[in-house]
Amino acid sequence: MNVLVLGAGQLARMMALAVKPLNINIRAFDVSSGNVVDPLTSNIIFNDLAQGIEFADFITAEFEHIDHQTLATCQASGKLRPASQAIKVGGDRRLEKSLLTQCAVANAQHKIIETKADFDQALNQLSFPLILKSALAGYDGKGQWRLKDKTTAEEVWLDIKAFFDGGEQGVKHAVIAEQMVPFDREVSLVGVRDSQGNTLVYPLTQNHHSKGVLSVSIATHVNEILQTQAQQVFDSIAKELDYVGVLAIEFFQVGEQLLVNEIAPRVHNSGHWTQQGADTCQFENHLRAVCDLPLGSTELIRPTAMINILGEDSVPNEILNVASTKLHWYGKSKRAGRKMGHINVSGKSEAQLASRLMLLANLLPEAAFDELKPYIAGYQNSLSS
Amino acid sequence: MNVLVLGAGQLARMMALAVKPLNINIRAFDVSSGNVVDPLTSNIIFNDLAQGIEFADFITAEFEHIDHQTLATCQASGKLRPASQAIKVGGDRRLEKSLLTQCAVANAQHKIIETKADFDQALNQLSFPLILKSALAGYDGKGQWRLKDKTTAEEVWLDIKAFFDGGEQGVKHAVIAEQMVPFDREVSLVGVRDSQGNTLVYPLTQNHHSKGVLSVSIATHVNEILQTQAQQVFDSIAKELDYVGVLAIEFFQVGEQLLVNEIAPRVHNSGHWTQQGADTCQFENHLRAVCDLPLGSTELIRPTAMINILGEDSVPNEILNVASTKLHWYGKSKRAGRKMGHINVSGKSEAQLASRLMLLANLLPEAAFDELKPYIAGYQNSLSS
Repeated sequence: MNVLVLGAGQLARMMALAVKPLNINIRAFDVSSGNVVDPLTSNIIFNDLAQGIEFADFITAEFEHIDHQTLATCQASGKLRPASQAIKVGGDRRLEKSLLTQCAVANAQHKIIETKADFDQALNQLSFPLILKSALAGYDGKGQWRLKDKTTAEEVWLDIKAFFDGGEQGVKHAVIAEQMVPFDREVSLVGVRDSQGNTLVYPLTQNHHSKGVLSVSIATHVNEILQTQAQQVFDSIAKELDYVGVLAIEFFQVGEQLLVNEIAPRVHNSGHWTQQGADTCQFENHLRAVCDLPLGSTELIRPTAMINILGEDSVPNEILNVASTKLHWYGKSKRAGRKMGHINVSGKSEAQLASRLMLLANLLPEAAFDELKPYIAGYQNSLSS
Repeated sequence: MNVLVLGAGQLARMMALAVKPLNINIRAFDVSSGNVVDPLTSNIIFNDLAQGIEFADFITAEFEHIDHQTLATCQASGKLRPASQAIKVGGDRRLEKSLLTQCAVANAQHKIIETKADFDQALNQLSFPLILKSALAGYDGKGQWRLKDKTTAEEVWLDIKAFFDGGEQGVKHAVIAEQMVPFDREVSLVGVRDSQGNTLVYPLTQNHHSKGVLSVSIATHVNEILQTQAQQVFDSIAKELDYVGVLAIEFFQVGEQLLVNEIAPRVHNSGHWTQQGADTCQFENHLRAVCDLPLGSTELIRPTAMINILGEDSVPNEILNVASTKLHWYGKSKRAGRKMGHINVSGKSEAQLASRLMLLANLLPEAAFDELKPYIAGYQNSLSS
């Protein structure tokens, strides 16, 4: 089976590693160069998309910011899974919000802003503090603004306007203003749906972000009320999109209520722990769904956490002395803040996992993992209380 | 880190997949073509061994039948792990038997046969039934003869003589005559030793062979008496060889006594279950040892079994419906009896594993997996009795 992935980053690479044993060959379309490459070696296989489409039995995507012409071409081939409409939803917060409304799924109070008048209206109708996010580009903390109150409103508006003006020509830019949710925790659900409509979800993962970028995800046995709520949201969104493959949903948890923050129509950073903590990892399950193979069990095998490695191309070898620790490098060149790899670690119990996390936090350089130790300490405390 | 593997089969391929996330790049020396290839794509990287050696930080092997000139060249580079002497022991039963004697390790009564006089003497000194195995070539049931009594002795001798004459010129051929061991079970131990002399072993695996080839391996929680015995044998052999990397030892179990059958100085088919049943798989641990990284825990995560796929290039997709089932194809072209891939399956308990094995046995075609169902049925019975 041959599959073309739109995007040639670490997600395509991890898909390739996960499904090589299933005799599924992954080729990756590098949107910046226009080449189709081997995601494990970066060797160029074809120098245009058309040959990549011809080669593929199925086409999928590792990210949502793909130009619409490329998506349309892939959609027309009849091989694209999930469909272009689902991928677009992940790349445009306006479509995302309208999907949530359509599915009657709880999310933050918000307003779409395209003009100064929209901006002023949002400030009057919504409660502060507000977070403003670019509708089109922007993730991992980019293209975002925060407003505590009206005092810096003019300044922020000028910055947003400059952002609109600096964006791609001929595209209708917008930001979404959202009421900040006073959440207790950030959690996410990764799930998978096959072309017959069967769905399976992984346990909810607890996430910690640092400077807007995911830093740690922890997957353990979960609160059934929250898990059921999340699964209902997953099922209704995935059904509405007639989705095929892995889909991730980020939530704000407020008490025992989940509010959708974001949808990612793809395998997700907060699902990397599944490589060693779940019966079937998200990468294999995505390709099982895309290739019409039976879905694999999403059961938790043992409590597992993931730590992102950002902007560093080495970590002390000693971390491999911590039992159940696996290192996953993406083979990328070093750049400040770049996702370079991740560390997975498991424990037989949540307490054992927490103590292994603390061992890792003590071995990793504080400069590069600055929020790790306090976060793990807080997590450990939450277990003993 | 760059590692050259001598041999370009499925073991090199699974090493490459296992350690790509550690940023270890594996190249494989294909002894038949003399090329150095990418074990995942078979693309030729270099067309001679010298460039492969130059490229490598370390050199290791995926099989023991490597010509001595190649081994000497690699040894001279100072990069070969394990050392050539250890690899040769695996490729010559005379050296293997003398190692076992040196380590005072229990094994079957045996005689080395190079001449008709040796043959006659062996038949007089050993008890029937006998098994005769080629000292140099031969594994997976090839180069073996059985003698129930003296009646077919002349016939077998002529066959052995023809085997000697048909073997490589200028090499001293031999067979080892061994008393057949009336074993209760065949088990094997896979372990790893680092360059500092630290060792870790996986749980003993119960193996079932079909026509001389491994068919099923089952790893569960084991009898501590046997495990300790096996570990002592492992430690003494590995120390004697100053071994670095993964080493496998096959045993005959007679009551609570283990007799060494064979040593394999490499990752081993009976250790493939570690890909999903152990904290660190044998492929990663082999490379951790070779590259001087800390060894990974060899703990059993959950009872796990492996079924070999021999001579078949497809199996029903329905097997993927059985929970905790993973399919590992080697990307080889179909040939009768060839090791084409394997299936790993796990269970929370041994009973759950056994019932999943039976589900698989019922889905797999009987013609190609002819001894599977009765063996699994017997295994299931042994659990309930």
